Amino acid sequence: MDKITIGYLGPAGTFTEVAVKELFGHRSFSLQAFSTIEECMEAAQKKLMDYTVVPIENSIGGSVSTTLDRLIHELEVPIQGEVHLPIHQQLLVHPKQKNRENYTHVFSHPQALKQCSDFLSKEYPGVKQQTMNSTAEAARVISENPDKPWLAIANSVARNFYKLEIKKENIETFSTNMTRFVVLSYLPLEIDTKRKKASIIVSFPQHDLMILHDLLSLAQIFRLKPTKIESAPMKTGMGEYFFFIDFEITNKEEGFKEMCRLIEQIGCNLRILGCYPSK
Amino acid sequence: MDKITIGYLGPAGTFTEVAVKELFGHRSFSLQAFSTIEECMEAAQKKLMDYTVVPIENSIGGSVSTTLDRLIHELEVPIQGEVHLPIHQQLLVHPKQKNRENYTHVFSHPQALKQCSDFLSKEYPGVKQQTMNSTAEAARVISENPDKPWLAIANSVARNFYKLEIKKENIETFSTNMTRFVVLSYLPLEIDTKRKKASIIVSFPQHDLMILHDLLSLAQIFRLKPTKIESAPMKTGMGEYFFFIDFEITNKEEGFKEMCRLIEQIGCNLRILGCYPSK
Repeated sequence: MDKITIGYLGPAGTFTEVAVKELFGHRSFSLQAFSTIEECMEAAQKKLMDYTVVPIENSIGGSVSTTLDRLIHELEVPIQGEVHLPIHQQLLVHPKQKNRENYTHVFSHPQALKQCSDFLSKEYPGVKQQTMNSTAEAARVISENPDKPWLAIANSVARNFYKLEIKKENIETFSTNMTRFVVLSYLPLEIDTKRKKASIIVSFPQHDLMILHDLLSLAQIFRLKPTKIESAPMKTGMGEYFFFIDFEITNKEEGFKEMCRLIEQIGCNLRILGCYPSK
Repeated sequence: MDKITIGYLGPAGTFTEVAVKELFGHRSFSLQAFSTIEECMEAAQKKLMDYTVVPIENSIGGSVSTTLDRLIHELEVPIQGEVHLPIHQQLLVHPKQKNRENYTHVFSHPQALKQCSDFLSKEYPGVKQQTMNSTAEAARVISENPDKPWLAIANSVARNFYKLEIKKENIETFSTNMTRFVVLSYLPLEIDTKRKKASIIVSFPQHDLMILHDLLSLAQIFRLKPTKIESAPMKTGMGEYFFFIDFEITNKEEGFKEMCRLIEQIGCNLRILGCYPSK
């Protein structure tokens, strides 16, 4: 049997790679790193990979807007699973630069810089923050520039991979820092978990937000617990929104499908993004 | 009588300055430009200005996260008014660089780059996009570097102020592009309009999102029409959200206050951000 192929937001050492190992650890797979979320999602859409893993939400930075935006406006590939991962950020430095007092730049992903903003403004107020496509890319840049007075924020996997030193551990503002990753694929996925979730995107007739009240009435009737309700602009005019809603499914999947049927019947535009196991 | 003082997101020539003129055009005022939204909001909070105007939402890019984040987590100064403004983006160039074929950089605010992304990826695919604090600052940079093959995206006011040429007009993807600006102040504001709105921030007991159903039931009873429902992470843990909700007030303000009282009574944490005229 061929190995399954898994695409993820690279390079090697990103939190997304950690998520892949958490989801597929027991299986035999070959990994392919993509350098942007857009490329990951295109690979999923075009079936270049069996499964593709991307971040969708962080408990501090909020939704990953690129992921949500593509799911709403462009993609048709369903969500087949999700995993929640605790996120710890490390301030990394090249061994040659370890004992220096002054640094000029700190490199990282915008979300990571945001997550560590309290630490940075207190300990490194004058240091220029430079955004990168991923935390691992920031670590790579530091490793390739041993003579520059630069810092990176990335995880421990990237630290080991690029042989960097930890200047300061766990510099994130909130220790409750978690990220949710989703698996995109046309193939179903089995994960070792009993929790099940479903995601929909919905818009309301005449953009009347009061219809959300009716939608939640239907969810209540079918005992579906909303775990996330987020609006995004439709881009067609002020006050016109899509809603991205996740539900926890505690009973049978049939209830969820019946609710969706009724939501459409009251005039909403609805798309099911997936009904999937959650870890 | 002293002139009123108005702070806004500068430099001269931003869309925010256009909003100020729309809101205060009939009065005598002195303007003070601040270079970031954070500084604007701090000036409002510390009463350094009589009124302060900042953007809060765009119909394409969505909420301005800095503004929303500060309103939720840091500020106590109320919203006293709002205005909706159509946004047209111009591709600007220094007169000396007008007839060139190749450009290396295009400067603008991240939201403006987002709003023009279709045009840029089609017409200027290889040109590096450089983010600035405002569209007007981008125009200023271009005007100060006549020998560089650079472009800026900004509005017509900035174009006139910095004496630039229009390379291409109205390059935004959607012609329905609108921005909402809010006035922050401890002083009430009278605007020539009959429309009235109110904004609240609310969180639910045990983070149970189904309580949003009860909240909307109460809004329905008091004939308050929600015009925006947006969630933002509380930063305390995954699945824990604040909700930022705007209502249109068609009847008396008392109904809104009574609804707020009842929302608190069912265990929600609620803060009224303001009850204000909307233009």
